[in-house]
Amino acid sequence: MTKNILLGHGSGGKLSHDLITNLFVKYFHNDILDQQTDASVLKPGSELISFTTDSFVVDPIFFPGGNIGKLAIAGTVNDLAVSGAKPLYLSASFIIEEGLPFKDLEEIVKTMSEEAEKAGVKIVTGDTKVVDRGKCDKVFINTTGVGALDIKRQKIGLGTEIKAGDKVIINGTLADHGMCIMSVREGLGFQAEIESDCASLNRMIGEVLEVSEQVKFMRDATRGGLATVLCELAESRKLGFEIDESKVPVKENVRGICELLGFDPLYVANEGKVLMIVGNNDAEKVLETLKKNEFGKEAAIIGEVTDEHHGKAWITTGIGGRRIIDMLAGEQLPRIC
Amino acid sequence: MTKNILLGHGSGGKLSHDLITNLFVKYFHNDILDQQTDASVLKPGSELISFTTDSFVVDPIFFPGGNIGKLAIAGTVNDLAVSGAKPLYLSASFIIEEGLPFKDLEEIVKTMSEEAEKAGVKIVTGDTKVVDRGKCDKVFINTTGVGALDIKRQKIGLGTEIKAGDKVIINGTLADHGMCIMSVREGLGFQAEIESDCASLNRMIGEVLEVSEQVKFMRDATRGGLATVLCELAESRKLGFEIDESKVPVKENVRGICELLGFDPLYVANEGKVLMIVGNNDAEKVLETLKKNEFGKEAAIIGEVTDEHHGKAWITTGIGGRRIIDMLAGEQLPRIC
Repeated sequence: MTKNILLGHGSGGKLSHDLITNLFVKYFHNDILDQQTDASVLKPGSELISFTTDSFVVDPIFFPGGNIGKLAIAGTVNDLAVSGAKPLYLSASFIIEEGLPFKDLEEIVKTMSEEAEKAGVKIVTGDTKVVDRGKCDKVFINTTGVGALDIKRQKIGLGTEIKAGDKVIINGTLADHGMCIMSVREGLGFQAEIESDCASLNRMIGEVLEVSEQVKFMRDATRGGLATVLCELAESRKLGFEIDESKVPVKENVRGICELLGFDPLYVANEGKVLMIVGNNDAEKVLETLKKNEFGKEAAIIGEVTDEHHGKAWITTGIGGRRIIDMLAGEQLPRIC
Repeated sequence: MTKNILLGHGSGGKLSHDLITNLFVKYFHNDILDQQTDASVLKPGSELISFTTDSFVVDPIFFPGGNIGKLAIAGTVNDLAVSGAKPLYLSASFIIEEGLPFKDLEEIVKTMSEEAEKAGVKIVTGDTKVVDRGKCDKVFINTTGVGALDIKRQKIGLGTEIKAGDKVIINGTLADHGMCIMSVREGLGFQAEIESDCASLNRMIGEVLEVSEQVKFMRDATRGGLATVLCELAESRKLGFEIDESKVPVKENVRGICELLGFDPLYVANEGKVLMIVGNNDAEKVLETLKKNEFGKEAAIIGEVTDEHHGKAWITTGIGGRRIIDMLAGEQLPRIC
């Protein structure tokens, strides 16, 4: 291979063919992808499937705890998992800036392959475009996923079964991903290094769904953070939420950098955090199950659903006050994922 | 809405929410998308599904005969259709450059909605990222598609049933899309305007599959053109091809501009052309069916599969010579799709 990616690698001709064979098929290979057809033939094994897409444009493309490739796998795996589905197949589509070092692309692709393996999903189809220098920023990746959805779980994505008294659970500390990217981008390396929480949560979520049929809603708290998930849910389902800020886990160094830069951890992006709404009777059982998983060690019940003040999420602040959690007005952190 | 796209439209906060509601849901709306869940729940109604992805980075984003949005729908619909599947659902993911005029985005989204309607597919899930000015080029679109695949058609994508004597059919003139983009980009407006052939071919392909069970392979001849499809197929399936250049339809003005700029129409991208390999007995019937469709009026049988010179496609040239069709070596036309 050449040292850097050339425009010709996106031509559909010989260089494209070489890139596919020597990079993508080499790392992603599986029985389906190896057939190298334009459209893959899948057998999800269920009547219903979940289907979701995300484009990743994170800057920088490498950061503590991951890279754009890990994010691209985990992000789409998580979107499938929170719908109640078992993630099975992903597509991977690359838009590459001419001149990207081949070794950077290889590292990203290798990480994607490892993360897909961990999550138990197959990358079954893909696409590569190369644009001239200065017309994109290093590399953008789209992943789109298909999961098998058990018919009894089809309402999880909608949240239609949520009612007052249900508990709000989070699987660990907030704001790690956003503050990791921010501190790298702003050159705040003098701080204790903050690692992104970027991870595929499908196995952990699968363990929870094994022990409880009272998981009524899940959502990964990415762009806009936990606050945005609560706002959207409160508004769309006409629910109220009461959140106890003192119960919301945030790492000390992350809290420090949030205060330094003026961010509220509730609004900062996560890439390995799922909000679960669980029936009161099963909340402790779900919490225990989460805590046994490597990605749920610091799980906590942080609040509950109320039948007051419909359409709003309220938070009790550390000093005993109360305020409404509102939707983020503008751009907080561009290109966080 | 604001006049131009802002970084905040990709924040996941209020502006994102407004953009989704006032643009994407407005134009794309259907029973599935309207639920606005992160992952859509689909019921393909078949045991096998076809799955394919493409990112579109065409430059310019508007061109005679279409725009990047039409291309993004038709391209993925065609990839599903040539696998023998019935296209059903698409995802649409946008990477937008800060400052893109809202009216441009709206025109693109409107065109996507119209093309999806024509093709009979639903856009069921999406994503929007906004990157700072100068970090992408206006807008890039990924579409990923799911189609229902009848079990009896699962070998079409592989081409494993092809044998010597089968006919090679194309549904119309070559090189229209590539030469359209090229002439706009190079400012060759003084030429007779060349229109892109960009179109969703799934209904035409469906009509062919209705009348014949002898369609053994299909592929849309996009990047790299017809030559690349033939080369890949010859190599992967160890087949030979004999193509008669005089039978290959090319519009007069397109041929003119190809000659002017030094392109071989066989290698130039198309966005509404499908190569079909059809059993000899059914070739005429398939041709007639194609000709009845608006996208197949100039369909032609251009050659056949041979059991000589395996792994190579040969072409008989206009002046009676013969040459091997080889794979495109470098980049011919960057950002053609």
